[in-house]
Amino acid sequence: MASDTRGSGGVCFRLSEVPGFRTAAMHCGLKTAPARPPDLAILYCEQDAAAAGVFTTNAVCAAPVKVSRRHIEAGGGRVRAVVVNAGCANACTGDGGMADALAMCRCAGERLGVPPARVLVASTGVIGRRLPMDRILPGIEVLAGCIAERKCTGDFERAIMTTDLVPKTAATSWRAGRSGATVRIVGACKGSGMIAPRMATMLAFIVTDARISPAALRSALRDGAADTFNAVTVDGDTSTNDTALILASGLAGIPLISAPRGPAYGSFRDALLDVCDSLARQIAADGEGAGKLITVAVGGAASRRDAEKAARAIAESPLVKTAMAGCDPNWGRIIAAAGRSGARFDERRATVQICGRDVFRNGEPVEFDRKEMRRLLARKEVSILLMAGSGPGAFRMYTCDLTHGYITINAEYHT
Amino acid sequence: MASDTRGSGGVCFRLSEVPGFRTAAMHCGLKTAPARPPDLAILYCEQDAAAAGVFTTNAVCAAPVKVSRRHIEAGGGRVRAVVVNAGCANACTGDGGMADALAMCRCAGERLGVPPARVLVASTGVIGRRLPMDRILPGIEVLAGCIAERKCTGDFERAIMTTDLVPKTAATSWRAGRSGATVRIVGACKGSGMIAPRMATMLAFIVTDARISPAALRSALRDGAADTFNAVTVDGDTSTNDTALILASGLAGIPLISAPRGPAYGSFRDALLDVCDSLARQIAADGEGAGKLITVAVGGAASRRDAEKAARAIAESPLVKTAMAGCDPNWGRIIAAAGRSGARFDERRATVQICGRDVFRNGEPVEFDRKEMRRLLARKEVSILLMAGSGPGAFRMYTCDLTHGYITINAEYHT
Repeated sequence: MASDTRGSGGVCFRLSEVPGFRTAAMHCGLKTAPARPPDLAILYCEQDAAAAGVFTTNAVCAAPVKVSRRHIEAGGGRVRAVVVNAGCANACTGDGGMADALAMCRCAGERLGVPPARVLVASTGVIGRRLPMDRILPGIEVLAGCIAERKCTGDFERAIMTTDLVPKTAATSWRAGRSGATVRIVGACKGSGMIAPRMATMLAFIVTDARISPAALRSALRDGAADTFNAVTVDGDTSTNDTALILASGLAGIPLISAPRGPAYGSFRDALLDVCDSLARQIAADGEGAGKLITVAVGGAASRRDAEKAARAIAESPLVKTAMAGCDPNWGRIIAAAGRSGARFDERRATVQICGRDVFRNGEPVEFDRKEMRRLLARKEVSILLMAGSGPGAFRMYTCDLTHGYITINAEYHT
Repeated sequence: MASDTRGSGGVCFRLSEVPGFRTAAMHCGLKTAPARPPDLAILYCEQDAAAAGVFTTNAVCAAPVKVSRRHIEAGGGRVRAVVVNAGCANACTGDGGMADALAMCRCAGERLGVPPARVLVASTGVIGRRLPMDRILPGIEVLAGCIAERKCTGDFERAIMTTDLVPKTAATSWRAGRSGATVRIVGACKGSGMIAPRMATMLAFIVTDARISPAALRSALRDGAADTFNAVTVDGDTSTNDTALILASGLAGIPLISAPRGPAYGSFRDALLDVCDSLARQIAADGEGAGKLITVAVGGAASRRDAEKAARAIAESPLVKTAMAGCDPNWGRIIAAAGRSGARFDERRATVQICGRDVFRNGEPVEFDRKEMRRLLARKEVSILLMAGSGPGAFRMYTCDLTHGYITINAEYHT
């Protein structure tokens, strides 16, 4: 029953590979690049999908977040379609923005022949600008037409990208218990900037053919997000639009997983965690301007909360992130960040490893091979481990280095 | 009795201008630049000075911080000298580092003929490296000799610099109440990187000839630091070595200010606040890689604590700081940062001004003159104001933009 999770690594898994789901995507003019990349997409389920979502914890949240949250709740976790656009966040747009988000649901629902309240909406891009509805609505009509004709057109996984350099997808499948039926989970997400923990970071869309109740789905997604999407930081900035959705078509031919317990639920939750973990790593690795993926692990802390405080402070420290960019094993910045984090912590009992090599032990520097260290730090994946003491608390975060690329992208990405 | 605070603006005020104080500085080899800049200095008071200090709140604090804190307390706030070095922080250096810091006090005390427990020490620079005592101790002997011979040699204000581009000083003087005597305050500080609020950021040395008790001095420094040094952020990273010290020689010929109350104390505290404020602004303006000083003010919040949360989130947001670098009035990032800060806050009642122009009001964008805005944002000082509602809470922070210069400095400043 072991799942075989695969991250994209050049291969783009398709949400439409999962029984019951269809997608369509197109360029409707929200992205201005001359190549006319896709910027509007629909994910559709042939029957009512069980659905769950986790959303931004930012007090300022975008109209599509408000609408999707309401539609999931009001529909008892039953959803038929999701409309997504990139290039405009529809955040801080007042009552007009709410009307636009609802109009997107209404238009898609009418054209797809499903109740508008069973349609969700997600947007990403610039804050504070109204959506060009004269382009969005005709676009939705075209896409709904493709879906009705079973033409899985365009590239959903690319349509959700903003400053992402690569599409991010992950897939897994396993044979379920006694039934022996194959169950699939495929996920796609976008990340890159305004990415920070304490929320369902970014936009993520995950589909499965598992037969599972909305309650069990909600529990599995919450568990999965806590250690994956909520443990990613690119720049500490929590977006107004973050949304992670999972839809289950129920076509896999397994007995219903009705509650969040038991072995069938356990297998599903573990497989979902693997998919979320792969997506989270891909988000960090493709952070704006990122040269490398950094895994920050803190162990031996007084509690999980202390470990998380220290890990977050290290992972968000501009000084640590620039040191990693420069292949500099600057453990002083790591210790200093942990020290200011508020985590209970005594440096005289602490150990720091960079890329598996001890650099600091019990309050004092350790000699290490600097040439070897530079070589290790030049790789695409590096690791920082702080053993804060001998307590039970541990936490792991994913981040990326801070480079000139981040500055260039963000000093030039204009409102 | 109005004071005439002057920031440096090209002029470097000297601590040795204040009656009772002498300084000496030299290059002893801690800084490796070919120009042999000063890196070791002594500040000396001709008689017991009343002294107070505020120190880093980082759980990992450097040996000199521990020693200075202990000496001020044990001596009842009476101090004769301060030894300072730049280039090596003497942090995370274990018992050996503590012995080094104490040896610096002992050497200076013996050569100056004062009790070693009346000598403070402050260090700044790389973490985790031991001080080269074979250079430091001979250096202290040379400097103590100069001071004994009343040769105010070298440049104290430059000796404390690390990645600072300019020395930072501020001065004020006023005529005190009935006595009519002139009282002076001169301060010098260093900042640049690993600068963040919630502590006495950086190294600051302030001297005055006011006659004032240690208790009153402590109160005035704490008040002053709260809204100035503790309201600066360059990169959110709180150092292990931050120290702000004030020494009062008592030579001004005014009646003793014995307690933190009354008009004479009020005048002193206001003058000290002006000096701290000028130094804090200079630290932000000369942050690593900074192109401009950014003042972030939040008003109308539910409480001062809410205002501070929102102001800090805005001032530390890499997305806001890169937008300012790019002269981009990206108010969406400002609202999003305030939204994730944990401050109680409703965007439908909020207003954002950039450089005095409304850009967002009551949850919706406001049209503004983009050409004029770009011109305003290109200045060396820019401002962000968030009116979060109609509450009584307000807070103001100083920060700088985030540029390619910060990356270059910190990816290349090696351990």
